[in-house]
Amino acid sequence: MTTPPGSATSLLSAVEAALRAFFESRRPLTEAVGGTFPDATAALEAFVLRGGKRIRPAFAWTGWLGAGGDPSGPDADAVLRACSALELVQACALVHDDIIDSSATRRGFPTLHVEFAHRHTVGGWAGESAKFGESVAILLGDLALAWADDMVRESGVDAAAHARIAPVWSAMRTEVLGGQYLDVSTEVTGDESVAAALRINRYKTAAYTIERPLHLGAALAGADDALISAYREFGTDIGIAFQLQDDLLGVFGDPAVTGKPSGDDLREGKRTVLFAEALARADASDPGTADFLRRGIGADLTDEQVHRMRQVITDLGAVDAVQSRIDELTTAGLRALDASTASESAKDELRAMAVAVGRRSA
Amino acid sequence: MTTPPGSATSLLSAVEAALRAFFESRRPLTEAVGGTFPDATAALEAFVLRGGKRIRPAFAWTGWLGAGGDPSGPDADAVLRACSALELVQACALVHDDIIDSSATRRGFPTLHVEFAHRHTVGGWAGESAKFGESVAILLGDLALAWADDMVRESGVDAAAHARIAPVWSAMRTEVLGGQYLDVSTEVTGDESVAAALRINRYKTAAYTIERPLHLGAALAGADDALISAYREFGTDIGIAFQLQDDLLGVFGDPAVTGKPSGDDLREGKRTVLFAEALARADASDPGTADFLRRGIGADLTDEQVHRMRQVITDLGAVDAVQSRIDELTTAGLRALDASTASESAKDELRAMAVAVGRRSA
Repeated sequence: MTTPPGSATSLLSAVEAALRAFFESRRPLTEAVGGTFPDATAALEAFVLRGGKRIRPAFAWTGWLGAGGDPSGPDADAVLRACSALELVQACALVHDDIIDSSATRRGFPTLHVEFAHRHTVGGWAGESAKFGESVAILLGDLALAWADDMVRESGVDAAAHARIAPVWSAMRTEVLGGQYLDVSTEVTGDESVAAALRINRYKTAAYTIERPLHLGAALAGADDALISAYREFGTDIGIAFQLQDDLLGVFGDPAVTGKPSGDDLREGKRTVLFAEALARADASDPGTADFLRRGIGADLTDEQVHRMRQVITDLGAVDAVQSRIDELTTAGLRALDASTASESAKDELRAMAVAVGRRSA
Repeated sequence: MTTPPGSATSLLSAVEAALRAFFESRRPLTEAVGGTFPDATAALEAFVLRGGKRIRPAFAWTGWLGAGGDPSGPDADAVLRACSALELVQACALVHDDIIDSSATRRGFPTLHVEFAHRHTVGGWAGESAKFGESVAILLGDLALAWADDMVRESGVDAAAHARIAPVWSAMRTEVLGGQYLDVSTEVTGDESVAAALRINRYKTAAYTIERPLHLGAALAGADDALISAYREFGTDIGIAFQLQDDLLGVFGDPAVTGKPSGDDLREGKRTVLFAEALARADASDPGTADFLRRGIGADLTDEQVHRMRQVITDLGAVDAVQSRIDELTTAGLRALDASTASESAKDELRAMAVAVGRRSA
């Protein structure tokens, strides 16, 4: 079937091949339903195939290798398929998030709801284009979520492995949806605490992106509790650090590198740990500055205003605080990994992934 | 655990008890995520528990009984849980459909997106109430879909039964999402054919409501191919008849009985088989009448205009045609059931359910 991946590049291709084969396997079903349904699912397939760094499958696969999985053994293809299914959960999360955030582009292409709104406009169809686009994107996101389950169920891993991964798979999906809900909810209720921001960070990002994928890989390999704990500690710490780094980039990142407008998170009103840190410090020391931050967040800021908010956030020490937290988490995460019984080559790989996360500028 | 149901009323209570226990089982996970997430999932639980006739679990359970399932045997509780999980797929379908259709009420209560929009307004939170309501409802619908899988997976049916139901479960979800997509799509593209309307009817309703639930029940019992074919034939025919009856009610139903405004489907612009039949007949015989129907469908009609459209649809023979189709399908479906090896008591039950479907006035 697929060639077991030996490097990051070949892992990317192997994941893509597994996804492509899965979409192919759905064709009899979508063609039986008929009409324009196969065209719509082709748009979902294109979305999934053009996307991303496959970070979740990479952590799951590496977790499996580190727990003794044999990339040239008889289970490798099935495990790869189970790990690749994470990309379909992610497709649902992205497609639905893009509706929620009213995002126009994703991965350099129109988001799915915008693409279908465009088809509606071009076709001169009845009703509202935006409404049509969102309706189709809701349904295609649902389909991606249903198909993620199908892909795991049909991956070919044995019954014992299925039993081991079931609670991980279940927890992961509830956690990411919980994290997304809290994100949406905190933004409107105006919970400004560092604790609330950290909770969202933990469940929307850390658990979903690193901790649970690693856990899934370990469970696929039948790892013992000690290794699973170590992976989860590493995954939680590095995952939170990953999001904190993302928060810094969202305010201070170079638009030429991040591909997003400068200070995007400030304009969008994202309630990040970085912003919560700044606000807590301002509240404690300087009410005027706190007012300035509260008036600015989520406003239609000029570049000059973004520049001033950045300066204030930095001067309050929030950037240093977040940077220290990233460093501490990275150290703690790496320590847990080092002390674990994961294979040396997997440790090397995971260390490299963790450092890449901490140092990335985009 | 639950008492095996012996009648329709006790089946309703048993399904509800199974759903209640499942929601209870999610609590550790939702509480671990924390914040207001448990409150949000409580709203989903209330939505699921206050609802409906549990028609899908009823067909699945009766299909299992008819294929030899023993309601006082050791598998009964597990099977009941697997059948009850259909209500969580249905919760996703309803919650997302209500967003798509911009529906304000469901089962006499505000729809989930309206309920959360209301919380937003009452709380005086930031941003747009409607947008917040829809965002939360998208996420809670996703959660219902993910939990449907969890409920089946954790139902306790044995590995062989899981293997038998997997393709049925998979097909059912793809079919209903495909049917919903075609419904949304046909409404805007203006495909007026009877074939398009029948295709939506088949996948959005018949397969999802009767055929696949029966198939699921049969697969749980390990039924042979002949019984599965008979069930599917019965389910498809009766399911299509069910939707055709619904189409008649949507135009001719008594508001006091249906709980919907008179002629609701005409005002909403639903492209039903009934309307497609009327239009095809008008196109063949009387272009002026066809114009009248095309101008009226989806328009903001007065009661007088609804009355006139009804008259025209009836005079064209479309009501008789649909009624004949319902009668033929019911006869064919019942014939397939009669000839099957299903138990006599299940046949009686399924016959009663089919006739109830054909004769209902609400």
